[in-house]
Order: sequence, then structure tokens, then C-alpha cells
Amino acid sequence: MKFDVTILGSSSATPIFNRNPTSQLLNVNEKYFLIDCGEGTQNQLLRFGIKAPRIDHIFISHLHGDHYLGLVGLLSSLHLNGRIKPLYLYGPPQLQEIIDIQFKYSQTQLRYSLIFSAIRSDISTKIYENYDVIVETIPLDHRIECTGFKFSEKKRLPKIIKEKVQKLEIPVDQIPLIKKGAPFIDKKGVVYLSKDLTTEADHPKVYAYCSDTICSWNYLSAIQNVDLLYHEATFMNDMLDRAAETFHTTSLQAGEIALKANVRKLIIGHFSARYRELEPLLEECKTMFPNSFLATEGQKFEV
Amino acid sequence: MKFDVTILGSSSATPIFNRNPTSQLLNVNEKYFLIDCGEGTQNQLLRFGIKAPRIDHIFISHLHGDHYLGLVGLLSSLHLNGRIKPLYLYGPPQLQEIIDIQFKYSQTQLRYSLIFSAIRSDISTKIYENYDVIVETIPLDHRIECTGFKFSEKKRLPKIIKEKVQKLEIPVDQIPLIKKGAPFIDKKGVVYLSKDLTTEADHPKVYAYCSDTICSWNYLSAIQNVDLLYHEATFMNDMLDRAAETFHTTSLQAGEIALKANVRKLIIGHFSARYRELEPLLEECKTMFPNSFLATEGQKFEV
Repeated sequence: MKFDVTILGSSSATPIFNRNPTSQLLNVNEKYFLIDCGEGTQNQLLRFGIKAPRIDHIFISHLHGDHYLGLVGLLSSLHLNGRIKPLYLYGPPQLQEIIDIQFKYSQTQLRYSLIFSAIRSDISTKIYENYDVIVETIPLDHRIECTGFKFSEKKRLPKIIKEKVQKLEIPVDQIPLIKKGAPFIDKKGVVYLSKDLTTEADHPKVYAYCSDTICSWNYLSAIQNVDLLYHEATFMNDMLDRAAETFHTTSLQAGEIALKANVRKLIIGHFSARYRELEPLLEECKTMFPNSFLATEGQKFEV
Repeated sequence: MKFDVTILGSSSATPIFNRNPTSQLLNVNEKYFLIDCGEGTQNQLLRFGIKAPRIDHIFISHLHGDHYLGLVGLLSSLHLNGRIKPLYLYGPPQLQEIIDIQFKYSQTQLRYSLIFSAIRSDISTKIYENYDVIVETIPLDHRIECTGFKFSEKKRLPKIIKEKVQKLEIPVDQIPLIKKGAPFIDKKGVVYLSKDLTTEADHPKVYAYCSDTICSWNYLSAIQNVDLLYHEATFMNDMLDRAAETFHTTSLQAGEIALKANVRKLIIGHFSARYRELEPLLEECKTMFPNSFLATEGQKFEV
């Protein structure tokens, strides 16, 4: 099953040439989820050839501009380009008001239903679920209310062993039942148990998105053992005071969090515009957690 | 005196790769005026090496997203980058509410004064004046309230004739008075009239910005004889019905307006995303008004 994330923006609040504010496109089994939507996100989608109309769910972590100022433009373009299928939006309660007022004054009547779910930032809740994935919030600790998001692949049914299908001439219509635990009885009346005809499905994978937050152990349990963690790393550790003051994390701290949470792989992003070169942030992070990568525009990571 | 306009964005509402929504930077004698501020404008400023902190006045024509969605990001970045000098903003009355609500929820307290002037869209009014330039609104005819802007260079004092200064040994401190009309009396008591010691200043130039509007003769008098006219040309003339329906202008109509208004030079812009190639729009426009040019990102036009 496809489960990957494409970085659309990696910068923090002030602009820097060639980096965009935060946004990511998650592809879960060909369903598109947009996480945050900084200014210019719709152009980034175009740039990387990602079809915006395929996005059905948008998650906004908090109401600092670098995480949502591209939203009204994107919603408006989807409308102008003829969207009629519903779009589901998850974000802080005040987001509704911000959108409503702008569509009111531009006299925009969306052709599609925009279904908004206000999310709480104080406790973790499940906000979405489909056949493939569960989405839960991760309460973070920022200057304003802010949540991360955890996308957990559901445990799949076991896989049928193809050789057994051929050898025992198992009819195709029996396979889903066997996967669900039913035994198979062949023409001679021999009974084969489901567990002998199947192998365990792949380990269900988890992606956690944490931006923006001060380094804290409060959300450590929520991200424990995830396969891929995106964590903000706005500053290097020589600016630890500035990071604390602005409720951000340093690249060293991001590595430490990944280590403590025992994640498999770490992406860092949300880089301050003061850093033209990002390698030093990565190097610092790797001293704590070697399996770390930089969020760079257009790059795709498998979960 | 410097008087030029740099195109920061030339596209209309829906995004297209390599074009940005509407914004222009006007330089009048080294004072920077920003006209409209579509999504991504702050990045365009960076891209073309224009120092955003030098902008002291921003004019917003109307509240369709492609003309203002970059504003909150720009205001916020100026704040984060330490601006303390006041910024003057002119736009529809509702713009104040749109900005306030977003700064309220992001808990942003601007370090600088943002001085907002609500502009009327029903009559032309003078909204700004300094030593060099007068700015007036141009009521346009769009789906929502919309104004263009006219920047008129002020008539300068006459220029002193250098040869006369030398020949008559006119003291430096007398020159400003002579320019203002005072006579000069030399040591022998001979009187020289101001008009004989000076030549007329250059013709004061005018730039008019008209976007978005249906083609109409209502604002023709306001743009009569301007040196440089920017006019929207969202569609080609084979989409005249669509233009009328959406209160936009075709490239042929833009040329006709320029011709009727007897302007010196025309720039067309605000191109629909359906046009990947823009030359056909220019060719169509030129059949009416040959001295026409395409608004293209980064291009600078002298007024």
C-alpha cells in the first residue's frame, strides 16, 4: 500500500527564496491528505505535478500564518476549477471564522461542501478514519494552541499464500473468507486452517507530524515507535534560548526526541530563514539520531 | 525623477505555474508603493531583489483573493523582521476586519503602526499625497466593489538655466526663490524675471492601474491621456460573453479603452490560467492599440 509524504514547504514564518512555508501532501493508498497549507501551497502543488482536486482532507495544525495562509486561495481555486465533491477540513475552531469572513467579502459561494471539524488542542482525539488509516491529533506546546497529527495505517488482513491457492485449487471467492479466519475444506473433505494458508500482513506503519512546538516530553508517548516522524527544528542548538522563548525546537532537540521516542526515521523542517545552508542543522540532529533527513521542497519520503 | 512599475504578478484567480496573482511595485522617486498583494507576493519581492521593508504604502483594489491573499503574510513578515516605522494601507473597509481577525487568532501584536484608510468605491477620491505624487482612486465596475488607482506626478518647479546662473553670478540661495517666481536683481540693479531664467519642468507623468473591471466607459475620463495604463485583459475576445459574465475585460477591449483614453502606453495583465501562451492576447490588443505590452513577472516599465 502506498504511504508516503511529499514536502511542499520547509520554511518557518519569514520568507526565504527557494523555500516555502509549511505544507505536506500525504498519500495513503491513493487518498490525498494535505497537512498545513502555508502561503503558496497551491503553487507548490502545481510545481510538483500534484493534482489539487484529489485532496479530500486538509489538516491545519494552528493559526500562525505560515501554516494556513495558503488555505483560502486553495479552497477558492478548487471552487473556480469546478469542484463539487465535499472537502473535509480539520483545524482550530477559529479557522471557520477566518474562512467565512473572507468568502463573505469576496462574495464566494463555494460549489462544494466544505465540511469543517474543529479540533481540540488539549487532548488527543481521533478525528478521521477510513478503511486504511486512522488520524489522531497530538497536543503540542506552542505559543498558541497547536496540534500535530498522527496517521496510523490499520492492521491489514493476513496475505494468502499463492502457492497454497494453486496447490489446493482454492476458489477465488473463498480467499477473502480465509483471510478473515475461515478454514478451507477441499474436495476430499480435508480441513486447512486459515493460519496455515496465510502469512501476517505487513506491519502497519505510522507517520507523525509535529510542528510547531517547544521540545517537550509531553507528546513523547503519542509518537513512540512511529515509523516516520516529522518534527520541527527551527533553530540550531546555539539558539536554544531563542527556541525556548518562541516555543520552537532546535535540531539537536529534534534528534533527542526521535531517539527517546524510538522512531525509525526522522525528518526535520520548519527552518528559520536565517539558515541559508541546512546541512549544519542536519549534522547537529544526526549527532543524536543518525537516521535523520532534511525536509526539502518536492522530496518524497516513504512511511 | 524615478517613476517606474515592476510587475510582481500577472495571473488571475486560479493558479498557473510560473505566473503569480496580481501585485505591482511602484517606485516614485525612491518611495515604494505596493499595488495589490496576491498570494506569494512576499516571495516575488524576494525573487526580484526588492526590499519589502522599503514599502510604506499598500493599496488593495478589492477583496477577491488573487488581489490580497498575500497581505497578511507580508504584514506579518515585516513585523517579524523588526519593522517599527508605520505602514499605510488603503483598501475596502472590510479589509480591516479580515486582517484584525487573523492577527487576533495568531496572537500577533504588530510592532509597527498599521494605519488603515478605508476607501470608497463609488466616487474618485484623493487618498494620498506627498511632495512628488498624488494618488486617487478610480471607481471600476466589477462583481464586488473595486477601485483602480491613479498615481499623478506633481508639476515640478521650473528648472533654472545653468548658463544664466554662471553669467549673472546668481547666488545659490536665490535659486529656489527664482524657481518659485521671484525676480533676480543683479549688483547693478538690473531686474531679471523668473520666466527668463528658467525653463519649464518635465511634463508630470501619470500611471493608472485598472484591475478588475468589465470594459466600461465610466472610468474613461479618469484615465484620459495618462502616460502608462495598466489594464486587465483576463480573456481573449472570443470569450467576450464569459468576460461580461464575470465582469472582466478582453484583450481587444483593453486596447480599445487605451485608444479611446488616448493613453501613451498600455500594459495588459490579469491573464486567465487557460492561456499558457500570452502572445495571442498581446497581438489581439495591438490590433486596437499598437503600443501595448504584456505584464510579465519581474518586468519593469518606466512611466
